[in-house]
Amino acid sequence: MRRRYFDHIAATPVHPDVMAAMQPFFGEKFGNPQSLHTDGQTALAGLDGAREKVAALLGAKPEEILLTSSGSESNNFAVKGIAVANQARGRHLVVSAVEHPSVLNPAKSLEKHGFRTTVVPVDRYGRVDPADVEKALTPETILVSVMMANSEVGTIEPVGEIARLCRARNVLVHTDAVAAAGSIPIDVKELDVDALSLAANQFYGPRGAAAVYVRKGVRVLPLIEGGLQEGGRRAGSEDVPAIVGLGRAAALAVERLEARRAEALPLRDRLIAELPRRVERVVLTGHPTERLPHHASFCVEFIEGEAMLLHLDMKGISVSSGSACTSKSLKVSHVLLAMGLDHALAQGSVVFSLVEGTPAEDVDHVLDVFPPIIDRLRTMSPLWTKFLQERT
Amino acid sequence: MRRRYFDHIAATPVHPDVMAAMQPFFGEKFGNPQSLHTDGQTALAGLDGAREKVAALLGAKPEEILLTSSGSESNNFAVKGIAVANQARGRHLVVSAVEHPSVLNPAKSLEKHGFRTTVVPVDRYGRVDPADVEKALTPETILVSVMMANSEVGTIEPVGEIARLCRARNVLVHTDAVAAAGSIPIDVKELDVDALSLAANQFYGPRGAAAVYVRKGVRVLPLIEGGLQEGGRRAGSEDVPAIVGLGRAAALAVERLEARRAEALPLRDRLIAELPRRVERVVLTGHPTERLPHHASFCVEFIEGEAMLLHLDMKGISVSSGSACTSKSLKVSHVLLAMGLDHALAQGSVVFSLVEGTPAEDVDHVLDVFPPIIDRLRTMSPLWTKFLQERT
Repeated sequence: MRRRYFDHIAATPVHPDVMAAMQPFFGEKFGNPQSLHTDGQTALAGLDGAREKVAALLGAKPEEILLTSSGSESNNFAVKGIAVANQARGRHLVVSAVEHPSVLNPAKSLEKHGFRTTVVPVDRYGRVDPADVEKALTPETILVSVMMANSEVGTIEPVGEIARLCRARNVLVHTDAVAAAGSIPIDVKELDVDALSLAANQFYGPRGAAAVYVRKGVRVLPLIEGGLQEGGRRAGSEDVPAIVGLGRAAALAVERLEARRAEALPLRDRLIAELPRRVERVVLTGHPTERLPHHASFCVEFIEGEAMLLHLDMKGISVSSGSACTSKSLKVSHVLLAMGLDHALAQGSVVFSLVEGTPAEDVDHVLDVFPPIIDRLRTMSPLWTKFLQERT
Repeated sequence: MRRRYFDHIAATPVHPDVMAAMQPFFGEKFGNPQSLHTDGQTALAGLDGAREKVAALLGAKPEEILLTSSGSESNNFAVKGIAVANQARGRHLVVSAVEHPSVLNPAKSLEKHGFRTTVVPVDRYGRVDPADVEKALTPETILVSVMMANSEVGTIEPVGEIARLCRARNVLVHTDAVAAAGSIPIDVKELDVDALSLAANQFYGPRGAAAVYVRKGVRVLPLIEGGLQEGGRRAGSEDVPAIVGLGRAAALAVERLEARRAEALPLRDRLIAELPRRVERVVLTGHPTERLPHHASFCVEFIEGEAMLLHLDMKGISVSSGSACTSKSLKVSHVLLAMGLDHALAQGSVVFSLVEGTPAEDVDHVLDVFPPIIDRLRTMSPLWTKFLQERT
């Protein structure tokens, strides 16, 4: 059985061009970029080239790009590093309720060091209202962190508007663009943010390579201390092959962003239109239009997300039931709860995220396979039976 | 010109078997190990297999192995994570003067959070005297961190002895085994340490994959917070290909440790015996016998390390002049200064580190090429001219 993969938010396959770019850096170009000899300088050239390509994806300068090992590391570094480096100006942070745990948990752990965090709510589409951020600002606020797009519900946040009102108050802004980068256009100068996280594995690059844009002049303390890599802001031998892969993936994203969007949109919209038509009591989660072009997410009433996922898996279809980073916690998504979904409905979460080259017939296949799976699962649900009885 | 590579301490090429093991995880096995579907579970199996192999290299249990992105991250995590998690018992640390910056700098930055660090000295061979560690212990001491082996001078430290006396005083012990793992036998139970860092790129594995052994029951706080990867102790999408490569490299190390040692020792010893015979005023740095089997390091009087390195590079020979992590600082090595070398001599550092398969003729070539390079460089040194005049 050919597997059909709809879990782009958890992992993308490495693009063949990316793999080809990485390959020599495992072999003849294996030097350490910190070494002064020719082998080292060859590796350094790879590193510099990648940094330029990531900068180009974001409209940043190469020296504003700091390389890390994962989106989570980027978020930890940005939130903790900026907060601690700027604490003389105040110790208040503002984050949204739908941030990734790698933003929320660092903000929480900073509270042990005298920081205070305000969590701003979202509407039923998962959108932050910039006015709520503005209300949360105090003279003590030094950093606001609101994501570009949410990986669980696909909603794109009004980061540009938030950054504008923060700039006026001299408050720094970080945005977690891990789910967004490579899928929607991002220009850090246009957005006017001070820091931005991204990860290669969200756009056909390898795991193990991620980046943080840090606007020139913004103070940030290292998370990993030691050697002088990344200008002393991130110690550790650089993972040159992965970073070269990140660079190639960034260049591909610049080239293909529009084509990817044009390819994904009709498939996404077909899922969004058809699934709720073919299955009773299915709701779209996230914003209907202000959402990632490859992202269709739903909650199915009277069903557990995990059961759907495993039954789809048996049919050769890979989907997720929310963020891979928390899938094993068996807790209901904090994102869906923040959007006001009730606990039972939130448990029925299912996310279809498309990859480049997803065949239209795979979407048709999902639309055919999904309704009978739900029917079967619901026959086992006492709550569904009760619902049917009450309805009649 | 065929390049001759003598900079194993900065980087090793990825072994072909390691590359072959990694390859499928870039392609068809690209899933996220946190995903519950088949694609995810295939990746998880790769991750679990690698963890078992790393555990086997160290004599640990798989659940005691935590995967990270670099040796520096491992050291930061171990030192900061253990110190902060155990601070209720005391806030005093002990480290040696020759630790890597990724141990020294975290210890230093903990001082801002109320910790105090005692730095124990080393002898002229770079060895820590366990009695000095014992003297440094106070009722407040919670953690001692002394490395297994030093990458700049090759000296192997008496970590087992240090751990024994710390255990008796209920003090936790971490050892940075980044330079040692894969090159000398390590058994965490025999050593009786509580935490140990290693990195794949020191033993023919890829960059981007490293590990920390944390003895079962030892409390440690995460450095990267967020998702539930690594039991909540290290957030971030796992770099599965690199980790699988680490596993394969660990298995190769188990298999080939003795063969590698047998191959490297005579070459190392030939360098150690011959270089000081062929070039005047050259001293071996580090311990003459208690040293890494592939490591020969020297200081050359009246010469700058960087000049030697660049002249050797022009002859196609890659060496280092100390740690790659600090090579761009242009500062004299803290390791050599701690060993009591004077500043001028310490500037003339050069490290030859062998890789598997280094041909004996490459060592001969170095022995032929090195003396005339030194002669030429010294003719440009006014200090050398003065030295010659005073001698006659």
